Amino acid sequence: MTLTEEQLASYRNDGFVLLENTFSGEEIETLCLALAEDQRVPGPRLITENDGVTPRSIYASHTRHPVFERLVRSERLLGPARQIADDDLYVHQMKVNSKQAFGGEEWAWHQDYIVWRDADNMRAASQVNVALFLDDVTEFNGPVIFLRGSHRLGTLERAASARDHGAGHIDPHEYALTPVELAGLVKQHEMVSPKGARGGVLLFSPQIVHGSGTNVSPFARRLLILTYNPVSAAPTPVGAPRPEHLVGRDHTPLQIDRGRFDRL
Amino acid sequence: MTLTEEQLASYRNDGFVLLENTFSGEEIETLCLALAEDQRVPGPRLITENDGVTPRSIYASHTRHPVFERLVRSERLLGPARQIADDDLYVHQMKVNSKQAFGGEEWAWHQDYIVWRDADNMRAASQVNVALFLDDVTEFNGPVIFLRGSHRLGTLERAASARDHGAGHIDPHEYALTPVELAGLVKQHEMVSPKGARGGVLLFSPQIVHGSGTNVSPFARRLLILTYNPVSAAPTPVGAPRPEHLVGRDHTPLQIDRGRFDRL
Repeated sequence: MTLTEEQLASYRNDGFVLLENTFSGEEIETLCLALAEDQRVPGPRLITENDGVTPRSIYASHTRHPVFERLVRSERLLGPARQIADDDLYVHQMKVNSKQAFGGEEWAWHQDYIVWRDADNMRAASQVNVALFLDDVTEFNGPVIFLRGSHRLGTLERAASARDHGAGHIDPHEYALTPVELAGLVKQHEMVSPKGARGGVLLFSPQIVHGSGTNVSPFARRLLILTYNPVSAAPTPVGAPRPEHLVGRDHTPLQIDRGRFDRL
Repeated sequence: MTLTEEQLASYRNDGFVLLENTFSGEEIETLCLALAEDQRVPGPRLITENDGVTPRSIYASHTRHPVFERLVRSERLLGPARQIADDDLYVHQMKVNSKQAFGGEEWAWHQDYIVWRDADNMRAASQVNVALFLDDVTEFNGPVIFLRGSHRLGTLERAASARDHGAGHIDPHEYALTPVELAGLVKQHEMVSPKGARGGVLLFSPQIVHGSGTNVSPFARRLLILTYNPVSAAPTPVGAPRPEHLVGRDHTPLQIDRGRFDRL
């Protein structure tokens, strides 16, 4: 699939664009079954909520499960990302953030790129985030909230540094914007949360300020987020790199797959 | 003001009705100044968030501050409530729930009446809740979420009993519906959260199931909630009643005041 000029302009101006009904319900079912299989195996790639049990995030399923291995090459995800980046891409990071029904927790207001810059020596904000709705996203189950156009502000520097966190997962909380900063930003950049049925695809900039609230509804909000990075911009770690499930090591240019990922 | 037949039907069928732009911005400013004055005085009527400092609720400001004393007689609040109850009314309870910017906390899913029944020996669900938006209510600042039509289910009994909590404020958490119950209810009763500019008035049934999420936005969501009760249905406490700021003792029929509450 190809983004229209209007969709490209939205991405450039707003920092995000939503492509509704990109995957079928049947395809999403296949992905959710694969996700459940992958979540069953404990390990450092599985991050839990504060209760220590409920899955919050799982990383790099595409390195373990054939369905996800094929998904990251899907023309419907890789295609638009290549169009935006105008370059060959590889998977820098893949995760599923599962915001559980009844109490899935907040994500602090943050930008993505600064974390990868500090933790992984990523030199430019050239990534493209591609999020796939595995559940219907509504106003009730903790949708991602963007500050429209805030990606154009560039990197908002923090006092904290992820350079000290080389070993693992970094929660955005450590890179959170302060209430004072955010209260200022919303005067210029309105809050907006793209919503839609499962199967929708949301492209967003690694520089856009975003966060989300809790999920008090009886409906989970599982969000698969792929971060593609240009092969030419692959980072060179300073010292020991973070684990491979957080920082993709395979920089081979991904080839677009026009087949169905659920027909292996 | 008088509710239309359509508005009355909404209240009966859905369990709520929203009256937009009922108070002016200037009037809301007056109320917020009065609220700030009243919140400055500590005491058992002031309930804080888990941090022990931030105001979560304040009760019975109408018994202390002339602006609120007059507000509860306002034709724009008391009028529609009388129309629904078709009876003389008094104030059973008045509170302001302040859901602060950046972290105002959740309210568990609950019904109101069962708490008053158990704690105060209220014999019938004849109350009318009248909520006044002191701030713009948006999808981002933790709006009240209703299960449409759930008031028609009557009282959903709990194992817990508020009879043991005679002394003070009862958080809805103690009367919360379980995830299993709620997951069942939403199949028949869709979630809906009325939103609008400050100055709007939201009438809702004491039997409707409702809750709300956190406020992750930079905008507070202060909600004034008046609960009127028919004079003929005033409860007779069993044993020591809860404090007067939680259970109104003055059962004198309220007379409608058509003047401006902010011109004292």
